[in-house]
Amino acid sequence: RIDTARLVARIEALGRIGALPGGGVCRLALGDDEKRGRDFLVAAMRDAGLEVVVDAIGNIFGTRVGRRTAPVVMLGSHIDTVATGGLYDGALGVLAGLEVLATLDDAGIETEYPITVAAFTNEEGARFAPDMLGSLVHVGGLDLDEALATRAIDGAILGQELQRIGYAGGDAGPRDIRAYFELHIEQGPILEDEAIDIGVVEGVQGISWTELTIEGRSAHAGTTPLRLRRDAGLAAARIATEVGAMVRAIGGDQVGTVGALTLSPNLVNVVAQKAVMTVDLRNPDEAILQQSEAALAESVARIGAEEQVTVERRALARFEPVAFDPILVDQVEDAAAALGLSSRRLYSGAGHDAQMIARIAPAAMIFVPSVGGISHNIQEFTRPDDLGNGANVLLRVALASADA
Amino acid sequence: RIDTARLVARIEALGRIGALPGGGVCRLALGDDEKRGRDFLVAAMRDAGLEVVVDAIGNIFGTRVGRRTAPVVMLGSHIDTVATGGLYDGALGVLAGLEVLATLDDAGIETEYPITVAAFTNEEGARFAPDMLGSLVHVGGLDLDEALATRAIDGAILGQELQRIGYAGGDAGPRDIRAYFELHIEQGPILEDEAIDIGVVEGVQGISWTELTIEGRSAHAGTTPLRLRRDAGLAAARIATEVGAMVRAIGGDQVGTVGALTLSPNLVNVVAQKAVMTVDLRNPDEAILQQSEAALAESVARIGAEEQVTVERRALARFEPVAFDPILVDQVEDAAAALGLSSRRLYSGAGHDAQMIARIAPAAMIFVPSVGGISHNIQEFTRPDDLGNGANVLLRVALASADA
Ligand SMILES: NC(=O)NCCC(=O)O
Ligand SMILES: NC(=O)NCCC(=O)O
Repeated sequence: RIDTARLVARIEALGRIGALPGGGVCRLALGDDEKRGRDFLVAAMRDAGLEVVVDAIGNIFGTRVGRRTAPVVMLGSHIDTVATGGLYDGALGVLAGLEVLATLDDAGIETEYPITVAAFTNEEGARFAPDMLGSLVHVGGLDLDEALATRAIDGAILGQELQRIGYAGGDAGPRDIRAYFELHIEQGPILEDEAIDIGVVEGVQGISWTELTIEGRSAHAGTTPLRLRRDAGLAAARIATEVGAMVRAIGGDQVGTVGALTLSPNLVNVVAQKAVMTVDLRNPDEAILQQSEAALAESVARIGAEEQVTVERRALARFEPVAFDPILVDQVEDAAAALGLSSRRLYSGAGHDAQMIARIAPAAMIFVPSVGGISHNIQEFTRPDDLGNGANVLLRVALASADA
Repeated sequence: RIDTARLVARIEALGRIGALPGGGVCRLALGDDEKRGRDFLVAAMRDAGLEVVVDAIGNIFGTRVGRRTAPVVMLGSHIDTVATGGLYDGALGVLAGLEVLATLDDAGIETEYPITVAAFTNEEGARFAPDMLGSLVHVGGLDLDEALATRAIDGAILGQELQRIGYAGGDAGPRDIRAYFELHIEQGPILEDEAIDIGVVEGVQGISWTELTIEGRSAHAGTTPLRLRRDAGLAAARIATEVGAMVRAIGGDQVGTVGALTLSPNLVNVVAQKAVMTVDLRNPDEAILQQSEAALAESVARIGAEEQVTVERRALARFEPVAFDPILVDQVEDAAAALGLSSRRLYSGAGHDAQMIARIAPAAMIFVPSVGGISHNIQEFTRPDDLGNGANVLLRVALASADA
């Protein structure tokens, strides 16, 4: 059994790094506060006697040796956050991994296979696109050089930021993985609504991120007749409005979000010259996701023509729905039952590093409830009991895979 | 007759201050480049032997003495610009005033009444709201202390910026004004479309600027069901879309613009917590302007309720339509005819310092064509011949008022 108080204390300690005045945390990937978070994690790994490896994309791996040297059992997640994030998204999976190892140490348990705790770079995608970038590079889904050349929303280059914060490592993390488990908060309302302890994650819905760059013509807001305008701001607003209506019309699990929208010159009396906006579309069903993408493309083409603006589209991220390994999923379900915890199967609405690792190894996830279903918000919260429950399930499945 | 080449050279010289790499100019009110523009203007006034006064809101007045000491004839405009402005908006009226005085000097003409060239602070309203702030304070339409406390879009305080750039003057500019004339580019397409030399401005349309601050709840874009969202970005986009549709439905001269829109945290996978947007509504008819304001208020209330967000409204500027002095308007028309120039009467779509001075003195304006009707854009351009024509009309009406 893991030590819940120790786990919570560690989550709170990491949560003080990049803490926001009103609560919550901002540790955007490879920023100064995330560097301090990395330092905290590496120090904790060294204290635990783990062998620490940092790879070329900044992923951090801390390995507890087993009787054999390979393959490893991996317990991973991330420590970057969005700009207005909570203490649990990502941090839980990494720190619960350390807690599992500490529990094995306390009990003097040696395992057959090594267990590696992993923290992947830029999972959130809030500063660099795509999300899950570090795990995607680790599985060979994105070329290292291309990833290092990625430009942040603030203009910085990923590779230069890695150098700057001292996390451009040279070693390769373990790719020979027996089983990958990721404990994460649900970030949605289902488990809390149904008063269920453990979410047995069957897979992750498909994710489609598009950036639209709309070019119109800046003009005087008082003197320019409507028919002579090429208003990039109006085009952007119309597209965002149609995304909202379109996902409601499709219904079911379809969601769509325009989270970022920037106008230039962004002044009260100047018709906007330019708008840059993002569209996040998701669905567990690939065919319906494609239908929503087609609807977006139709809106963009029609509104662009009507408002006489040009629109450039850039894919920021595109991941098909992923199904996790059925055997590991069963193991998670069985572990919850063995611990006397209620569970239900569900799909993840958020992207996770587990979906990338699933490309090269058996992978599964464990969810614990999020109060109010709130995440990517400073009010994100998961009760200590739920944190402990999740970590205990993680301990059981990790031990089963590391010894079997 | 004025010296067009000298006028153009002076406009180009000022245009090099705050010049943008791709052309055009950025001299936001009380910024470093606008300070350099002010220094240029004051030096030119001193070179011309004018008596220079800077008042407490930073308005600059340069006076050429007459046989009597008062009242003055005032030739004014502004030298601040929007962030992507041209060389002519504002600068023309001020520098043509200097050119008029230089022409009188060259011809050895003494006038009965003094002639004052004025450059008013923050006419554009691009950095501080309201627009025409300096002239509004000069006529007593806005309390000085309130004006000095105005916060810029970048957070700076107007009074502190005036101190910082050394333009917090102590003297009072002339308020005893016989006649006020402002030469300005049209900033719209009418004169060019109809191949007319001079616009005889009968008045200025009404201006209504509103800032909306929309508060929703930040949430995860992948996991948060649509029904649980309070999406400030979607609410903002819907309001901007309805403003676009509403002004088209009203038709006629009604225009409406959402030029500024800022989301927080402005990230691809976070439902926006907050949106701040501006709405610029204008109409020459006060009743129809009020109708558009009522339609905006209805949209805001309905969409705010539907999207479960709160919306705070703040009036940034509200000016009723203004009619200029009929006698001065006739003088402008007559001066154009005497110079053999074609003219037509029109209303101004943009706000101007003249509409504020009109509260305390007879005022009128002279427009010259804008190529393509383009303004508040780095491509803003007015042909040298047109600049010269406008300045010659200004010379005639100024002389008539200063001697009559
Ligand atoms: N778990 C999580 O919040 N991942 C970030 C990527 C996304 O789903 O937007
Ligand atoms: N002339 C001019 O561009 N004035 C700025 C104020 C406005 O009309 O928006």
